[in-house]
Amino acid sequence: MTPQEKLNQHRGSIDNLDAALINIMAERFRVTKAVGVLKAENDFPPSDPDREKRQVERLRKLATDANLDPDFAEKLLNFVISEVIQHHKQARK
Amino acid sequence: MTPQEKLNQHRGSIDNLDAALINIMAERFRVTKAVGVLKAENDFPPSDPDREKRQVERLRKLATDANLDPDFAEKLLNFVISEVIQHHKQARK
Repeated sequence: MTPQEKLNQHRGSIDNLDAALINIMAERFRVTKAVGVLKAENDFPPSDPDREKRQVERLRKLATDANLDPDFAEKLLNFVISEVIQHHKQARK
Repeated sequence: MTPQEKLNQHRGSIDNLDAALINIMAERFRVTKAVGVLKAENDFPPSDPDREKRQVERLRKLATDANLDPDFAEKLLNFVISEVIQHHKQARK
């Protein structure tokens, strides 16, 4: 196999994994939208620092077990949470 | 079910989806690390703007089909790609 063929094969895997990521992320947003509505209706605070701290710790451990850089996992979670919090604030307007 | 019980149920779903995201992301990084080595060994450029443009277009469409904000999908991909490019640059040092 030429290096270009190997590269194309890897890219096929990346494209499949990205499709999986998008679909799981879509389901995650479906749930966090329901959480946003629930929080707004019941006057719960839009963010929950204790919950977020536990999520970070859990995901860093899961990442380490999967041989993924735990700092990357934490940055990714913070990126996703900041998007979700923006959506929650918009849902309250 | 009380609002707090509903919230806890949603959070259980989010935690399951996050574990799936971490594992798929770990596999994606495993593949992009192999791509990084292949590119470094064969003196391919670390980034490929044409490939990235096609990835963005494809993922925006997949996101739209999954009812996920395509702008979020694009931001997410850019976030992941920028991490990968940093790793590729480090692999060359």
